[in-house]
Amino acid sequence: MATPTLIPGPLDTDAVRESVDIALEEFLTRKARTTPQHHLPYLSGLLKDFLSGGKRIRPLLCVTGWRAVGGAEDTEAVVQVAACLEMFHAFALIHDDVMDDSDTRRGRPTIHRTLAALCAADRRPDQIERFGVSGAVLLGDLALAWSDEILHSAGLTPTQLGAVLPLLSEMRTEVMLGQYLDLRATGELTDDVEATLTVNRYKTAKYTIERPLHVGAAIAGADARAMEAFTAYALPLGEAFQLRDDLLGVYGEPESTGKSQLDDLRAGKNTTLIALALRGADSVQAERLRRLIGDPLLDEEDAAIIQEIFAATTAREAVEQMIDDRRHQALRALDDAPFTADAVNALQQIARMATVRNS
Amino acid sequence: MATPTLIPGPLDTDAVRESVDIALEEFLTRKARTTPQHHLPYLSGLLKDFLSGGKRIRPLLCVTGWRAVGGAEDTEAVVQVAACLEMFHAFALIHDDVMDDSDTRRGRPTIHRTLAALCAADRRPDQIERFGVSGAVLLGDLALAWSDEILHSAGLTPTQLGAVLPLLSEMRTEVMLGQYLDLRATGELTDDVEATLTVNRYKTAKYTIERPLHVGAAIAGADARAMEAFTAYALPLGEAFQLRDDLLGVYGEPESTGKSQLDDLRAGKNTTLIALALRGADSVQAERLRRLIGDPLLDEEDAAIIQEIFAATTAREAVEQMIDDRRHQALRALDDAPFTADAVNALQQIARMATVRNS
Repeated sequence: MATPTLIPGPLDTDAVRESVDIALEEFLTRKARTTPQHHLPYLSGLLKDFLSGGKRIRPLLCVTGWRAVGGAEDTEAVVQVAACLEMFHAFALIHDDVMDDSDTRRGRPTIHRTLAALCAADRRPDQIERFGVSGAVLLGDLALAWSDEILHSAGLTPTQLGAVLPLLSEMRTEVMLGQYLDLRATGELTDDVEATLTVNRYKTAKYTIERPLHVGAAIAGADARAMEAFTAYALPLGEAFQLRDDLLGVYGEPESTGKSQLDDLRAGKNTTLIALALRGADSVQAERLRRLIGDPLLDEEDAAIIQEIFAATTAREAVEQMIDDRRHQALRALDDAPFTADAVNALQQIARMATVRNS
Repeated sequence: MATPTLIPGPLDTDAVRESVDIALEEFLTRKARTTPQHHLPYLSGLLKDFLSGGKRIRPLLCVTGWRAVGGAEDTEAVVQVAACLEMFHAFALIHDDVMDDSDTRRGRPTIHRTLAALCAADRRPDQIERFGVSGAVLLGDLALAWSDEILHSAGLTPTQLGAVLPLLSEMRTEVMLGQYLDLRATGELTDDVEATLTVNRYKTAKYTIERPLHVGAAIAGADARAMEAFTAYALPLGEAFQLRDDLLGVYGEPESTGKSQLDDLRAGKNTTLIALALRGADSVQAERLRRLIGDPLLDEEDAAIIQEIFAATTAREAVEQMIDDRRHQALRALDDAPFTADAVNALQQIARMATVRNS
């Protein structure tokens, strides 16, 4: 595997992406080869396609965390661990799409839709949907199990593995708990802004930003002070990342985001945006929001009505302001962080990428 | 934890069960305590209840495999690894029940039904079912992640962990692949007896019998010859175990099996029993089987018709014969296996338990 450009000097994000892509590709090709019979090459190929569309934000953060505290050797190992995070993320997304019953992801049909189409010729309609959902649950399970395999064969020393494993365990429980909080809240809209931010913290801020940095840093033997500095940067940035995601779900261009503007509203997810709108809404507006959001038949016209209410209640503006505040808070946390200058630079770039984006 | 009776002398199966139960209980109690907010104690409790009904066959085999090749120290570690297998099995069952849309498991509502009931008061019917399924997928995911955590904190030496991890990875991929093969085959009944035995091998024989023995033996540093001897015993026994399960699905007493006699037939699973019946059926019988099996509205009367066809085609008898043959084959494999006398004794007992049972 070619990973010469990961160090030294400024972080080469393209090189990180490429190295992680190669690691994932090689792993899945090996999987398909070792059990060539019985559909495994098909499942492995499906996962390969699915993985090919990712932004690789968690791998980038993992490598950045590692470099920030002086990581320089073990380049191959850190790339493998970064690939393990991306494989775990594939698991999380595939199961999320089942739970949200989403049609598209990264501009393509979701896994459960793809699998349903696979058997559409010879089954009853209820069997087709069941096969799609069941197959997607299973493919997600495989991705979770395989993310472990990538980790175990990453070539970490026992000390490194001992530092990384508890962090990954925490990360898994946190993101699953966040997802459960989200599910529990879905379907009953709330104006409790704090509650939406709690879900955000577990489901996104810790999972997407904090833990990948921690995992990378742990490989390089980071101390407690460095870990705290990563947290101080990661939690506000992670919240901002999710708030941007909430806005993109409603206002993003489908060609850029890879998903319809209707999916999130139909799913009836409780976002901070909606909570703020409900808080600022008069009784007519509130009734409309409660009636439309979560309606599986919601159409473009309904979406436009909702967007008007988001504007009238200044909820959209308020979320933009929250993103801004949090990005600044994250950047300030870098001021006296014990990180290398190159890494601070990279973390500043990442803060921009995560909060000012269209996909 | 009290595990004094695991060695030496004959295998004390009750002591193994008790030790594993305590390990699982302590782990889940710790989980609920460390993240006391946000529903985690509820999810942990749900998993505790679910786990309380198991037969603990995989933990028993793990401990037996370890003792068979001379395992004597590391009692605590082997119990933890056995508990990790049981936690993994909880994951597999929870997801299986979602895929099969089963109502009951171990005499109680399945997890997705329990969770659906939890929110039935304040949601639309489609949201209720979706919450049940999504929550169960998530609880299964948690169980999978937590089975890893139990393993990682089991106190294995790096050498032991290095021997166990590849086996667990194989086991996970095998059982998931077996489940996928099963899903692919569901809904189109086959008279291909060999195909049903292939699913059986991946989904049950290797997963339930072979790998738990291998994992335990690996902790005690077993050599290749011992591993092969376990395989020679495990694969026929595992097939017999699943064949017994297939019969119990159709003929078992619901009070003993904890599930309705209709579930398996409604799910339209391709069992060896059905394949044999189709192979022996005349055209009227075959048409009836194809029409009734897999029908979600199948009732007691339909089940009785199917049972008559199973009798008339001698399919039921043939499966009993296959179970018998395989049990004998498994027992013969013990004749010159390099195992301790006590372990051979235990493996003989387990062969009986696995094939002559009513639940």
